[in-house]
Amino acid sequence: MAKCEVHRRVEYAETDMAGIVHFSEFSRYMESAEHELFRRAGLSVMMQDGEQQVSWPRVACAFEFKAPLRFEDEMTVSIWIADIGGKSVTFRCEILCGGDVKAVGTLTSVCCLIEEGGRVTSMPIPDAIREKLDAFLTDE
Amino acid sequence: MAKCEVHRRVEYAETDMAGIVHFSEFSRYMESAEHELFRRAGLSVMMQDGEQQVSWPRVACAFEFKAPLRFEDEMTVSIWIADIGGKSVTFRCEILCGGDVKAVGTLTSVCCLIEEGGRVTSMPIPDAIREKLDAFLTDE
Amino acid sequence: MAKCEVHRRVEYAETDMAGIVHFSEFSRYMESAEHELFRRAGLSVMMQDGEQQVSWPRVACAFEFKAPLRFEDEMTVSIWIADIGGKSVTFRCEILCGGDVKAVGTLTSVCCLIEEGGRVTSMPIPDAIREKLDAFLTDE
Amino acid sequence: MAKCEVHRRVEYAETDMAGIVHFSEFSRYMESAEHELFRRAGLSVMMQDGEQQVSWPRVACAFEFKAPLRFEDEMTVSIWIADIGGKSVTFRCEILCGGDVKAVGTLTSVCCLIEEGGRVTSMPIPDAIREKLDAFLTDE
Repeated sequence: MAKCEVHRRVEYAETDMAGIVHFSEFSRYMESAEHELFRRAGLSVMMQDGEQQVSWPRVACAFEFKAPLRFEDEMTVSIWIADIGGKSVTFRCEILCGGDVKAVGTLTSVCCLIEEGGRVTSMPIPDAIREKLDAFLTDE
Repeated sequence: MAKCEVHRRVEYAETDMAGIVHFSEFSRYMESAEHELFRRAGLSVMMQDGEQQVSWPRVACAFEFKAPLRFEDEMTVSIWIADIGGKSVTFRCEILCGGDVKAVGTLTSVCCLIEEGGRVTSMPIPDAIREKLDAFLTDE
Repeated sequence: MAKCEVHRRVEYAETDMAGIVHFSEFSRYMESAEHELFRRAGLSVMMQDGEQQVSWPRVACAFEFKAPLRFEDEMTVSIWIADIGGKSVTFRCEILCGGDVKAVGTLTSVCCLIEEGGRVTSMPIPDAIREKLDAFLTDE
Repeated sequence: MAKCEVHRRVEYAETDMAGIVHFSEFSRYMESAEHELFRRAGLSVMMQDGEQQVSWPRVACAFEFKAPLRFEDEMTVSIWIADIGGKSVTFRCEILCGGDVKAVGTLTSVCCLIEEGGRVTSMPIPDAIREKLDAFLTDE
């Protein structure tokens, strides 16, 4: 029932000629917080499971942008799990700065086996992983 | 009633350690095609309107990812306008490669006046701009 | 004795809050042209050589920036090979726009064998590759 | 006589299909540390000086890459000033991970006045700025 919060400052290279953070950077902010959530759960987004590699390709991503972020703004990226299905996980995130919600995002990933040679096959989320992710399942 | 089609090849820097195009790059592909649509309409996404600058900050962006893109894949980014409201425009796009739809995206932007000093205010889409964008309004 | 020329237009996401192309993008422009040079030579920067993968990690990169590039500028990236050593290749590139040289760059890569598991070992450039790259060796 | 040290962890989006950090990201790591140096000196890389804006366009950037960085590697970016000229500053940086130097970089920026309308003119570094930067001038 926890959220994972990450603090970061807007970097210069993330801005565009309108003087604000380019909208594509928000998905990188969300991903970076998602990977921190994995680490806090004792996992990694790229894991060896015996001889196999388990990873989480994305099937959907969405953002609503409420207000711009600017250079050197200090933000909090708050991320949690809204749903864990048989094979997929849906994250929600809020990007906050100075008490305001600047953007809200959703990201759905599918648990996949990455085989030698790069073939990708979806698989049921292993119980050992599901139990750890459950700590960030939040009803909101 | 036209779509704007742009052809491009996946660049190495767009790939990630899973050997596929990072999902954040798809929003850049969509934006690049959107700006080509503006140019074909005789517009630019950053325009002077007398002494004022008119631009189009994003309020929403969403993607569904159907299949991965890989290094040197040649793709077609097809973009069109699904809706023109009083102040906003909603684009839809398909990213195709080898006859398959790899991803579908949606982007909503709001017509804004950028004042000296960076203040951003939404405004009704000027008629001269609306008429040109209408050529890409597609019922699909 | 040829140069490889690539034409491209500055994309919005490549600009920063100063209204110009961010300096880190120039190394991506150079890399993209380098990979086109490989293609025109009948090669790829990521090749299978029997069961092994041959690639070209970078050991050095340098740029001098003469003048800024701006959104929608149409540039020519001209790249050629300045030197081919036993294991390494040094590229030089010029980025031109409107008749002016905007930046000059240098990139040195080492021919490497990528083994299963990710181990990287430098190797002499195979003759079949060297012969093809020679076409872009330019004395300038 | 101080160096500015910044700690960060490699993010997934910074990796490429070779499984290592893409070389263009190193210039972003260096820039991010440079901006932290400005902050620790009580400055910002984008400053108002009365009604004028002072910024630091780059004239040169160079990197030597000694060894790759990989996803979730924790690095230290150490940056200092090697030279302060009349109008320019040259930074040097080392990127360290696990006790090893992974890359060394050099960046030269010129103090410029950014006028309304985007005109950029180089200017002598103001004394008030020079005195603060002097704290990071290191003889190495």
